[in-house]
Amino acid sequence: MISIVVLGFGNVGKHLSLALEQSDAAILKQVYNRSEITLPSQLDHIELIDDLNDLAEADICIIALPDDVIQDFSGKLPEQDRLVVHTSGSAPIDALKDHSRRAVFYPLQTFSAEREVNFRSVPICIEANNAQDETLLFMLAESISEKVTVINSAARRKLHLAAVFVNNFTNHFYHIADELVRENDLDFDLLKPLILETANKINTLSPAEAQTGPARRGDKNTIENHLHLLSEGPYRELYEKLTASILETYGKKL
Amino acid sequence: MISIVVLGFGNVGKHLSLALEQSDAAILKQVYNRSEITLPSQLDHIELIDDLNDLAEADICIIALPDDVIQDFSGKLPEQDRLVVHTSGSAPIDALKDHSRRAVFYPLQTFSAEREVNFRSVPICIEANNAQDETLLFMLAESISEKVTVINSAARRKLHLAAVFVNNFTNHFYHIADELVRENDLDFDLLKPLILETANKINTLSPAEAQTGPARRGDKNTIENHLHLLSEGPYRELYEKLTASILETYGKKL
Repeated sequence: MISIVVLGFGNVGKHLSLALEQSDAAILKQVYNRSEITLPSQLDHIELIDDLNDLAEADICIIALPDDVIQDFSGKLPEQDRLVVHTSGSAPIDALKDHSRRAVFYPLQTFSAEREVNFRSVPICIEANNAQDETLLFMLAESISEKVTVINSAARRKLHLAAVFVNNFTNHFYHIADELVRENDLDFDLLKPLILETANKINTLSPAEAQTGPARRGDKNTIENHLHLLSEGPYRELYEKLTASILETYGKKL
Repeated sequence: MISIVVLGFGNVGKHLSLALEQSDAAILKQVYNRSEITLPSQLDHIELIDDLNDLAEADICIIALPDDVIQDFSGKLPEQDRLVVHTSGSAPIDALKDHSRRAVFYPLQTFSAEREVNFRSVPICIEANNAQDETLLFMLAESISEKVTVINSAARRKLHLAAVFVNNFTNHFYHIADELVRENDLDFDLLKPLILETANKINTLSPAEAQTGPARRGDKNTIENHLHLLSEGPYRELYEKLTASILETYGKKL
């Protein structure tokens, strides 16, 4: 059994701890969080600490903290012969350079406190600075997910950038649509089937094949109508830039 | 039974015809298409015409053609005492002004030729220029969908604009992500669970609650890294504009 301590109990730390608790290959020994928290009932038998001096010995320490604190925080961990891992998509493995055995365990998914996640379908991208630890981490990742890939820091950064487009930016468009319909006393629920189908389509079509709409068709009238509706509001420029990018991608002119 | 002719057999015409063929309230009498087509096997008993002189009498003519040809095309339909309907989100009802009984039947979904659609979950937005036809159209819509709403032309245009954001623009971000990962020999499949979860989240969280990422956190380092990765490529400006819009929405500064 691989013994593990999870450090940081934000959204990633929480969902990862819940998944590790279910793993046949791992034993979750401790959760560390700086501020006071309550562990969910599935984890109420796990030791919870808020002082790094109380850190238990474990095969792997997983730091599930924001990118900008990983390096400083990892420097505070007492040096021992154990693997220290972070979970960030954008921080390089060398953010853990204070530790001779270091690695990354990046679950490529969006986590929210109140939403359950099926970790088995979450791609986990791993990287380690030696072959033995890569094998160890691969075993651990495979015990909670069906989709484990070895990806180095440079490629992982690109993947994280792509994830910003498909998650953060896409979700912001949902928000803009929500505003647009609410301003007109329409129900955002009307758009939900379209949002789901847009995402589901990529299971059978490439995004380029799935692209439709006025910009894809080069439909100048509809585009002008939409720009008029957006008048001088905050989203007109985004509409213009996205439209220009789609026109450019598909070789259309207005 | 409400007798219907569908004019135009593109993606909307095709999927709508398939749904109407299953309806207990409607009988699909004819399909018109200007160019030669083959009807799918479920419709092989339906009369297919390519000449408007052969148009059968029917209670409703549904024009499922691109926005920019609706008005001209509808002018060519012989005037009879029947309801003439278009399926566009952005064209006003008065695109059919040559007909005394006119209406709109807008299925708010994205349709692709090769992808089956469950019409029961597709919101249908209807509008008619008299109360009797509104009732008739409502009955028809309810026979194929569980989500029927009466929405006027002005509100429908806004809804269609919102749909462009959540479908066309979102799908373009999928395409950009696809390009970014392929450039780095990574597999777009890695992003699919994230894409699906991003869409599914809005069933339990508002888009504003679901928003995460470097711009939401005001994480300057990660944003700068991403801009560096995009260097002078075609997507840097989109990244900047989206980031600025998210920062603005959530009152963050870099």
